Amino acid sequence: MENKIITPKKLQGFWELMPKEQIYFSQMLEKLEKVFSSNCFLPLDTPILEYSETLLAKSGGETDKEVYRFSKGSTDMCMRYDLTVPLARFVSMHKDELNFPFKRYQIGKVYRGERPQKGRFREFYQCDADIIGNETLSIVADAECVSLFEKCFKALELDVEIEVSNRKLLSGYIQSINKEDKIIDILIVLDKIEKIPHDDIISMLKEIGLSENECENITKLVKTEGEFKKIEEKLKNFCKNPLFEEGLNELKELDNYLSLMGSKAVKYNLSIIRGHNYYTGTVFEGFLKGKKNLGAVGGGGRFENLCSYFSKQKMPGVGMSVGITRLFNLLMSENYFDLEKANEIDCAIITFDETFDYGIKISSILREKGIKAENFYENKTFKSKMKEANKRNINFVVIVGEDEIKEQKFTLKNMQTSEQEKLTLDEIAKKIKG
Amino acid sequence: MENKIITPKKLQGFWELMPKEQIYFSQMLEKLEKVFSSNCFLPLDTPILEYSETLLAKSGGETDKEVYRFSKGSTDMCMRYDLTVPLARFVSMHKDELNFPFKRYQIGKVYRGERPQKGRFREFYQCDADIIGNETLSIVADAECVSLFEKCFKALELDVEIEVSNRKLLSGYIQSINKEDKIIDILIVLDKIEKIPHDDIISMLKEIGLSENECENITKLVKTEGEFKKIEEKLKNFCKNPLFEEGLNELKELDNYLSLMGSKAVKYNLSIIRGHNYYTGTVFEGFLKGKKNLGAVGGGGRFENLCSYFSKQKMPGVGMSVGITRLFNLLMSENYFDLEKANEIDCAIITFDETFDYGIKISSILREKGIKAENFYENKTFKSKMKEANKRNINFVVIVGEDEIKEQKFTLKNMQTSEQEKLTLDEIAKKIKG
Repeated sequence: MENKIITPKKLQGFWELMPKEQIYFSQMLEKLEKVFSSNCFLPLDTPILEYSETLLAKSGGETDKEVYRFSKGSTDMCMRYDLTVPLARFVSMHKDELNFPFKRYQIGKVYRGERPQKGRFREFYQCDADIIGNETLSIVADAECVSLFEKCFKALELDVEIEVSNRKLLSGYIQSINKEDKIIDILIVLDKIEKIPHDDIISMLKEIGLSENECENITKLVKTEGEFKKIEEKLKNFCKNPLFEEGLNELKELDNYLSLMGSKAVKYNLSIIRGHNYYTGTVFEGFLKGKKNLGAVGGGGRFENLCSYFSKQKMPGVGMSVGITRLFNLLMSENYFDLEKANEIDCAIITFDETFDYGIKISSILREKGIKAENFYENKTFKSKMKEANKRNINFVVIVGEDEIKEQKFTLKNMQTSEQEKLTLDEIAKKIKG
Repeated sequence: MENKIITPKKLQGFWELMPKEQIYFSQMLEKLEKVFSSNCFLPLDTPILEYSETLLAKSGGETDKEVYRFSKGSTDMCMRYDLTVPLARFVSMHKDELNFPFKRYQIGKVYRGERPQKGRFREFYQCDADIIGNETLSIVADAECVSLFEKCFKALELDVEIEVSNRKLLSGYIQSINKEDKIIDILIVLDKIEKIPHDDIISMLKEIGLSENECENITKLVKTEGEFKKIEEKLKNFCKNPLFEEGLNELKELDNYLSLMGSKAVKYNLSIIRGHNYYTGTVFEGFLKGKKNLGAVGGGGRFENLCSYFSKQKMPGVGMSVGITRLFNLLMSENYFDLEKANEIDCAIITFDETFDYGIKISSILREKGIKAENFYENKTFKSKMKEANKRNINFVVIVGEDEIKEQKFTLKNMQTSEQEKLTLDEIAKKIKG
């Protein structure tokens, strides 16, 4: 009986790479994991599904329409939409078993049922590292996260510029002018300061209720950028408010630790807000050097209390996130990766009828030596094997004839230059690696 | 306003490791990926969700109650329950862009909504490598998968024994006695041959309709095991059936390629059936040496046509799967991993008030050199830092006093032996790595 044929389709907005792309993407993840690990962050791998009650604790159990939520039996579940809520759940459950500050990283897929559009995915990777304290957490942790973010890009061999601020500066100023009840409205306007004309910003702020003078001051504050020394000079008498002063002190401390850590890619820019209303202190965003117009490729910041929905214990945290899916797509669109050269196979073993079996042995030996050696076993003749090697753009072929087997020296041909020489398998492995 | 506190809970039956366990598990995955890659398998990372129509193509669109299936808007989706159907979907969609034989590996989570029980999970990892041919596929591919399976365990430093059969032997014999319509019933009985008494097997086979003589023959066949030479001797005149002879020839060819590949862990055992009715030729299972009673830790085999539900093109395949979640839990239960020694941190930097800042610099320098150096920045005093190092079982501490900074030689203390010496940071890194 014939099967009914179903047209195979992938779900819309779900990310899937072709093998050569995946090679580069996997290499990126591997490099990032190495950075996290050598900086003493521990791996965590939470389930993709969580109880809806847990995942939606923050929103009071209401279904957010972007979340994939469903029931099976009596269990109401959601697919995770970020890696932070599962971290909060994990830390709350295990707070008596963990060492604090608890430093963890997680690279994993998250799910958001948004309408698919260019650059937006329903399933995509997040790559997070966070440091969670028990009751207290030093500004050293903030510096670690900023520095870690810088190291991630260094490991990826990408130039990054990191712009750092501290939310207490803005919050402190807004407190000092008694507009705390309008803080969200004000931040929404200020978040657009690099995108819309100054006059429009001013009139929007006036509408919220700021005076002429306050408007000028707050935009002056937000437009402050540069080295810390310059910022300190400009802001030391800007505003007599304890929160503002705390923000400035934290920024100073951060700058000190960052320089001890050898950071080179940081500048301060008080227009960095990171909409997310959960950041409370340090905030930062990273941009590819000279490509700020492409948007941030990640960022992070300090939050007051990770676990407020799960525990009465105060657990301050600071984290960073590399926008790895976005970054990869960006690099792809700029032809950053040479897909032709993706290291699928290092060399092909080309045999004749009578040496076919010996070719199997040779590929095994070379693979043991770390060389990706492939037999084209579906191509039976010498000629068709060579043709396959050409078609696949293989750099090297190893030709195995009966004389070669007797001599235990095999012909290594460089397919780019057509140079060939007879070498032992050890020499071949060295040559290909070199 | 205080938040309502929700008790944090993980979904039942969903696997989640503590950080020290995760370190070992991640190391295992890393080793396996290296093996796959050096054997020319390409990485693939398909979405966790698929259209239900795609995922349930095989079952004619009926909901299997173990599958997590749900709708969002008008889209009917399932969470993948294995990595094979998504592979079939991927290969069918991209068959004109891929090189064949297409060799891919995938390590990923799969979902089965079974009742949770010991050793069974609703979310767990599968670790698969498959070779897919276009119309044809050489037995070399079967040998590659068996050999790859062996190499996986070698990389994990575990002794494995692989038992191999070819389903065509049993199918051929059953054909020769005209019991093809009863093949599934017969296989179900024979699958129990190592578990229940011989007489019971015989009476169950008789009930299916086999004669006394056929019962004796088929159990003799299934109980055949050992080196290939011995099996060939025993079976060369066993049964005049083309399918049976094809099976024996394939086994011979496989044995030849396996010895060329340097395989050492394989023996033949015709009682290996691998229930799955989709295997059609080579089948194999692996067991930890001397621990067959714990059950298989993986296996694989040849299938006639991967994509029969998605394409009219015939795509034969052969694959292997390491039961990585099961294996890890097994090793955990045997205390195989020394969780105390899990490499969380290599050394702690112990400072005094006045050298705290310099300690930050030192940890950065050591991390650059590949040493996981940690500052206990929440512990402010020398004494409390040392206490933390003891509590966490850290192997080494680096003591940073003002004299040490002047000299640029720091005290490295081995916490196990209490030995200490003054060394440069380079020497410290070497010592810790050594």
